[in-house]
Order: sequence, then C-alpha cells, then structure tokens
Amino acid sequence: MEHREYMELALRLAEAARGQTSPNPAVGCVLVKDGRIVGMGSHLKAGEAHAEVQALRMAGEAARGATAYVTLEPCSHHGRTPPCADTLIKHGIESAVVAMLDPNPLVAGRGVARLEEAGIEVLTGVCEAEAKRLNEVFIKYITTRKPFVTVKTAMTLDGKVATYAGSSRWITGEEARLEVHRMRHEHDAILVGVNTVLTDDPQLTTRLALGGKNPIRVIVDTTLRIRLDAKVLTDGEAPTWIFTTERADPLKWERLEEMGVRVFSTGNEAQVDIDRLLTLLGAQEIASLLVEGGSQINSAFLHAQAIDKVVSYVAPKLVAGQGAPTPFGGLGIQEMNDAVSLVDVSFEKIGDDIKITGYPVWG
Amino acid sequence: MEHREYMELALRLAEAARGQTSPNPAVGCVLVKDGRIVGMGSHLKAGEAHAEVQALRMAGEAARGATAYVTLEPCSHHGRTPPCADTLIKHGIESAVVAMLDPNPLVAGRGVARLEEAGIEVLTGVCEAEAKRLNEVFIKYITTRKPFVTVKTAMTLDGKVATYAGSSRWITGEEARLEVHRMRHEHDAILVGVNTVLTDDPQLTTRLALGGKNPIRVIVDTTLRIRLDAKVLTDGEAPTWIFTTERADPLKWERLEEMGVRVFSTGNEAQVDIDRLLTLLGAQEIASLLVEGGSQINSAFLHAQAIDKVVSYVAPKLVAGQGAPTPFGGLGIQEMNDAVSLVDVSFEKIGDDIKITGYPVWG
Repeated sequence: MEHREYMELALRLAEAARGQTSPNPAVGCVLVKDGRIVGMGSHLKAGEAHAEVQALRMAGEAARGATAYVTLEPCSHHGRTPPCADTLIKHGIESAVVAMLDPNPLVAGRGVARLEEAGIEVLTGVCEAEAKRLNEVFIKYITTRKPFVTVKTAMTLDGKVATYAGSSRWITGEEARLEVHRMRHEHDAILVGVNTVLTDDPQLTTRLALGGKNPIRVIVDTTLRIRLDAKVLTDGEAPTWIFTTERADPLKWERLEEMGVRVFSTGNEAQVDIDRLLTLLGAQEIASLLVEGGSQINSAFLHAQAIDKVVSYVAPKLVAGQGAPTPFGGLGIQEMNDAVSLVDVSFEKIGDDIKITGYPVWG
Repeated sequence: MEHREYMELALRLAEAARGQTSPNPAVGCVLVKDGRIVGMGSHLKAGEAHAEVQALRMAGEAARGATAYVTLEPCSHHGRTPPCADTLIKHGIESAVVAMLDPNPLVAGRGVARLEEAGIEVLTGVCEAEAKRLNEVFIKYITTRKPFVTVKTAMTLDGKVATYAGSSRWITGEEARLEVHRMRHEHDAILVGVNTVLTDDPQLTTRLALGGKNPIRVIVDTTLRIRLDAKVLTDGEAPTWIFTTERADPLKWERLEEMGVRVFSTGNEAQVDIDRLLTLLGAQEIASLLVEGGSQINSAFLHAQAIDKVVSYVAPKLVAGQGAPTPFGGLGIQEMNDAVSLVDVSFEKIGDDIKITGYPVWG
C-alpha cells in the first residue's frame, strides 16, 4: 500500500457524507499501524465528532504509533469540539499524512505546525487536487463567506430548455432527474426565479427513494409577484426565503412574513442584486446554492460572475424552434471571443443523457 | 486469434479508405492460412481493385486453402470489375467469414450462395454491427438512392451557434475544427444555405495539413440571392451546385450556368423541397451529404425528416443571450414529448470540446 491508497480511502469516507456536514467540510481519516488499518472516521454532521476523533475511537490503544491519513489539515482551534491536532497528539500518533491545508488563510498551516511541534512527522499534499475538489463548497464558503454556486441546466442537443410553446417535461431521462434530487440533497439551498414558481408551481424538494435532506428554497422575486398559494409557501416541506427589492409591495411583504416566510431585500435596484443576495445567504450559513433557474435567472448569475460550477445535462433529442428558450438568456455576450470559458470539464453518460460539468473562469 | 480479431483488422483496413470509395462501400479483406496472415486488402477507389482482389494478389499461391475475412459480402455480379465471389473461388480459398450481407436487397445473399455452391464454408455476421456502422453511408444510398445526411453543428454549452450579435468565431477549438475538415474530406457533398454564403462567404473546402478531397458544394438558394462574386462561385476549388425553385430570376439562373454552376430546381414551392433535393443529389451519385447549415437549413432538414446522423460539438463556454441563434431554428416542435430522439449516442472529448453523435429516430 502507498500513501495515495490510504488517502483515497479517507477521501471516500469523506465523500460519503458530502452535503450533510455544512457549513463544515467533509473530512475522512484513516489510521494505519504496521501496514494494517486500525481506525477509520468520517465527519458526519456539524457539531458532531470530527473524522480524526471517530478514527481514534475505533483504534483505541492501537492509535499509539499509528500514521493518520486526513483529507484536511487537523484543526488547531477550539470550535464546537476540541482541536483535532491536540487529540491526535494526545493519542500518540507517530506521523500524519494530510491531503490539503486548511483553506482558511487565517489558520492554514497551524494544525500541521502543532503536530510538528509535538514531534509528529507530517507529509502534506497527498491527493491534494481530489481533496480540494471534494471540499470546493467549503473552500469557497470559508474564504469568501458566500455560498458556492452551482448552476444546473438541462437542455436538448439543440440547446433548448423547453419547446417554443413552453413544454419542458421531460427533457432528460429518469436517471438524470434522480441525480438532480441527489444534488438538492447535497445543497444547503436551491434557487429559482419567481417566473418558475408562477409557471410550474414546483416544490423544489428532494425526492429520493430512501429520503433526503430538503434544501432551503430561495425565490428571487423583484416585486413580490409570488402567489400566496404557491406550493413553496404552503407545503411546509422546507423553509422558503424570498429575495426581493425595495420596489416590492409592503403589504404583500408583511403578509408573507406573517405566513412564516423570510423576506430579504437586496436594495432598490431594478433587479435583485445577485452579489448582495449571496452575501446575505452566506451570513445565514448557506454554504452551497443550487441554481435551477430559467434562462433569465441563469443569465443574471452569469452577468454577476457569480457561478462557481455548471452542471449541464444534454439530452440526445431535438425540438428546434427559433423562439424556444435556452439555458442562458438575457442580452448575452457580444463577441464569441469574450465567452465565459469553463475549465476542468468532465463528462459522463447518465442514462441516455450526457452530463457535462465545468468551472467558469472569470477573467 | 479469433474470428473477431481478424475481422476487426479487416474493418480497420476498410475504415482507412472511408470517404474515398464513393459511391462504392469501404471494404477490407484479410486472408489467413495456418494461423498466419497471408494477404490484406482494402478497396481504395471506385473502379479500382476490390479488397478481395488486393488481398489475393498479396497472398499469391498462399491463398489456396486460406480463410478470407471480408467486411462485406463478396459481390456476385459483373460491375466495373469481375465478381469477387468468383475470384475467391478461383484462387482456392477454403472458407470465408463475412461481416454483413450486401445491403442491396436485390443481391443480398447471392455472393455467399455462390461461395457455398463452390464448397466454401461461409460464416456470416461476425462484427456485423461495426460493419454496418462503417458502411452506413453506402447502405443508405444503395437502398434509397438518396445520400446519407449528416448534420454537423457546433454550439456553446448554453446552446448557441453564435452570439446575439452574430459572432461565431470560434465556438470550438482547433482539434474539433480539424475534424470537421476531415468530415468534409469524407463526404461527397457539403450543403449550406444562401444566408451562410451571403454572411460568411465561406469556401467550404477541405483544409487539412496533408491535403484532402473537396466535397461538391451545394447551396440552397430559393430565389437565387447568391452574389456572383461569392468564393464558392469564383475560387474554382470544387464544383458548386445551387438548388433553387421556379421562383428564381431566370436571368440570374442563366448567368450562373454561364459561369459553370449547375442549377437545379426542386419545383415551385415556397422553399427548396429537401426531399426532392436529396433525390436529385442521389441521381448525381452523391452518396453522402454533410449539412453545415445554419438554424434555418438544419430545421428544414429536421422538418423533412431527412437527417440520418447528427454530429454535435459542444464547446465548454457560455455566451447567454435570448436572441442568440441555436443549432435548429424554425418554428420547432410544440411538445417535448414529440421531440426527435437520437439513438446509438456516443460521445468523446475532442480537444476541449465534447463531440456527441447520434442517429435520429423518425416515428
């Protein structure tokens, strides 16, 4: 076995809890002694035991003299739990292999320093790229205090999100639609524009065979046009937050708050200010936001350079139509040379559809 | 070695000449005796030696008692060359493995029957699916006398073939653009609408580092609006054929013919009749047609159910824009349920872009 192999196991442990640890990162830990695994742990939920603590518990006395493989630098500060660096030292581990340093620039390197001061040999950077990808949400959130924004789109092979007549059920197949529910489960909040609510009256909940966590539902509604009997306001499945502007009707605002809906204002611009919205969501500990907006909302996020990741499902079908909507509307970019490029693009077949994932580069 | 392995080699030999054998099929042949390859052949050009003949020449006396692996049933009729079935018999081959029968229903099975009558053992259907895919163009042409139509599109990940301002250089990267030139090389004809000619004044030639065959250039121009100084009319790189209607100006028509341009009429409908156009092209021995049309032309082919294959390059970039054109325009299909589905979908990364290939199913 090599360092990489143990770290990959630690990454799998972390990955299993992705989406349920927010606002904490997903972390995995494997303890190895004399070529045998003596402990494994994964952080499952904010406020509960960290991965290192779980692995130490499993190892018991065997932890003494072991090597700890941790996907993220052990913490050095007293948070909801005592610092993991100290706990590892206390249990007598001999060496540590760390995939990535803490992304928080204020504490990065402190955990490693603490271990080294205690005479523990530390190797960093093993599977660093994978660890960073795994915690892309946490890294964004901890460094900017704004949520990591994923825009999810589904279109035909000729670029349509609906026919010219507005028909959009279904573009993708069952497997892709199931995956979208998994994405909802993994996100703290889901966002759509009020037009989607008015047209489709969606629930925006997570519907998976074995259950799942519902994201908080965020509606962008510049003038509070939402209907009071909309499912997102009445079904009680998850909190619904509305982002509006000072241009909204104060009586409707009051009415919504009476119904238990949180209404946030981003100011008095002509449209909801996306950047301000993200700051407000971040302040509410929303670390990840899934945008399932229509053309208009997606385009507003593009314009605000507020997209961290794009997940696009392409269905192998054609509907044609000059008037049919596409994933990103608005005015658009004038020159093809100025297009927003995506990097780290990956793609895979999901059922009959093709899923393309990439990360926009904001130049 | 197994039958499959020799047949795969024969398929590779055939594939190498794909696009240069029209209107004949690409065919490969491998002769094997006592576990050793004694001959290989590939049909390179209509009128020249068939694959079997080439392989027999290479084998010489060793052909006696050999097994012939042929990607297509050996012909049984006197065409530009003598029937290959007879030639194989004459050279004393002992057995034959055939990937697929002749797609021409009038002669299918005759070559095999001839071999069997001569006491040669014949196994058919080895790598049949691959052989059919390899000769999809020939099969379509020989059974319908219309060209196999491939629509090639290139779009951004948000479904745009140009920005709202018409800027489209470049959507895809160099590798994908190079591949398109390879596609041009492999097709008998390339088709665009007159709007593309008026806007971009393209050459529609094959530009590959080591040269390539230029396709015949087909322009759809309902009222002969083409400019007489368009490159496709003046550069002399390849023949240009214009398909128009009776509504065209007779003087312009005459002028074009004086310039050496062939002008075809599909009748007096409001638009060029796509089905009639394909029949006319077929009559001119055009077996494969590459449509590089804009939104409008692609949509006309979709409407006419005249597309055999779609090759779509998706570039990982976003330009947004409600008014930006998409690969298929026109009115479009009303209900998502009635979308034209593609089957046998495959996809691969070409440079930074994703190439998606599929075959429409016409219900």
